[in-house]
Amino acid sequence: MAPIATSNLKNFKPNEIRADNISKFDPNFTQNVIDAMGPKTKPRVRKLMASLIQHVHDFARENELTIEEWMEGVQLMNWAGKMSDDKRNEGQLVCDVIGLESLVDEIAFKLVADTSDSATASAILGPFFRSDAPLLPNEASIVQGVNGGEITYMHGHVFDLQTKKPVPNATIDVWQASTNGLYEQQDEHQVDCNLRGKFTADSNGYYAFYCLRPTPYPVPNDGPAGKLLELLDRHPMRPAHIHLIVMCDRYKPVTTQIFDRIDPYLKDDSVFAVKESLIVDFVDLKGNPRASLELEYNITLSPY
Amino acid sequence: MAPIATSNLKNFKPNEIRADNISKFDPNFTQNVIDAMGPKTKPRVRKLMASLIQHVHDFARENELTIEEWMEGVQLMNWAGKMSDDKRNEGQLVCDVIGLESLVDEIAFKLVADTSDSATASAILGPFFRSDAPLLPNEASIVQGVNGGEITYMHGHVFDLQTKKPVPNATIDVWQASTNGLYEQQDEHQVDCNLRGKFTADSNGYYAFYCLRPTPYPVPNDGPAGKLLELLDRHPMRPAHIHLIVMCDRYKPVTTQIFDRIDPYLKDDSVFAVKESLIVDFVDLKGNPRASLELEYNITLSPY
Repeated sequence: MAPIATSNLKNFKPNEIRADNISKFDPNFTQNVIDAMGPKTKPRVRKLMASLIQHVHDFARENELTIEEWMEGVQLMNWAGKMSDDKRNEGQLVCDVIGLESLVDEIAFKLVADTSDSATASAILGPFFRSDAPLLPNEASIVQGVNGGEITYMHGHVFDLQTKKPVPNATIDVWQASTNGLYEQQDEHQVDCNLRGKFTADSNGYYAFYCLRPTPYPVPNDGPAGKLLELLDRHPMRPAHIHLIVMCDRYKPVTTQIFDRIDPYLKDDSVFAVKESLIVDFVDLKGNPRASLELEYNITLSPY
Repeated sequence: MAPIATSNLKNFKPNEIRADNISKFDPNFTQNVIDAMGPKTKPRVRKLMASLIQHVHDFARENELTIEEWMEGVQLMNWAGKMSDDKRNEGQLVCDVIGLESLVDEIAFKLVADTSDSATASAILGPFFRSDAPLLPNEASIVQGVNGGEITYMHGHVFDLQTKKPVPNATIDVWQASTNGLYEQQDEHQVDCNLRGKFTADSNGYYAFYCLRPTPYPVPNDGPAGKLLELLDRHPMRPAHIHLIVMCDRYKPVTTQIFDRIDPYLKDDSVFAVKESLIVDFVDLKGNPRASLELEYNITLSPY
């Protein structure tokens, strides 16, 4: 590498350090691995794998990764796989704590939104979604036996991004953790499908149900994701949120989470899912014997 | 990004494309994830994780990784963990087929060798090493009941890189697959510790044992590493080789593999471990009733 003139320092890129570091090692190694792909490799697989191999190798070279460090990574990956089952996806959670699921979600949202960013923003699905939540009528409650907590009347309209008019018949799939921070499938003391349900907006695009003001909770930290958080000197807490998937024929589906504005973990969500537009206000509700709080939340869908 | 003047094209770096692509997305996202590391993070962990997060995020952005593609990767990782046990390390094998173990090995070797590259080159450990191979006397055979194959008298001296003199008492730990391409722990028809043993060089630095001319074999391809090879349109074959670990007090240990020059897979080892200096010649041997081939192989150790 040529010496860097002082006048060029403002254009100095980390890449130039990398190029220098790479030069210690076999300069053809990575290209040889990439070129080993055969002619029947699908174009998208070829692009993704060439890029993945380049990044993984650059990571190893730039940091002069030791055999022991690499093997610790392998063991962490294997541990994540062993811990995963139909109720827990630890590989996903490891990705979550390094922000990858939220980033992939942002990429998907940007590509869906194209030039517009006015549709309801998305957030990660998370590992606790179940596709078999019960269909419930509007005005029903998803709360089936919970200790403590504040019941919230959540309601609003589903709108079309372009016409600004209400969208009838959208499905709102909602799920949340209980007051102890556990989802029903993590907690044998909760009844099946506690705190989850699917609602259908009426002909005016209106939906309404009763749920809990959500509670902040830690992501499961007894496995490799927890180990990683410990190594990174980070807490496992997620700010209180309610999960939603809103779907309607002829509209792009939205998977999102909404966050309670007063939550102390809004600024340092352990999985980096918070966006300003997803922060909502729970307000006091008078005169409704079924709830002490109200949350009006409107959803905007982008047509295909 | 400023437009690139034609006169600057020779200095054009892929990084500039990346910067442009990144600009579609939240420019602070990755730094926020890196900055979430707390003050108690160890400096090496901080460096490695900041670099890993940057590369993983860049990979996702540069390729506009979809949620489905990311989830396929998560499932492949989890599958690798589930398949791994005390006899099989599938996470390691997945790394091997993208060249990572060989690269990490090269980095380690370059750092050990410093300015010299005359010590015996290293190669990956692979997943079939056992630390409990039997100690055998010089001139013993590691072949305990094998169908077919050519018995080879392998012998040589261990030298000091600096003095060029023989090194007495080095331990040579050797292991190889059988003629069916399987290591003993993969094959219930082989006796325990077949084709493995530890030898001690004598006071003249001389070692000798009987082994097999090695056989090319496929890496296990019934799991995620095999799936990856299929996606990459690559075969799973490894060129025929013998594994060695040579250790001696006051010298840097060497983990290596030696490869048969006539092997058809030398040019496309599925785990990228072949180096020119590790290719050896098996020659005909006359007058020794115990072997039909001879391999003289000298090992050079670098003192600490």
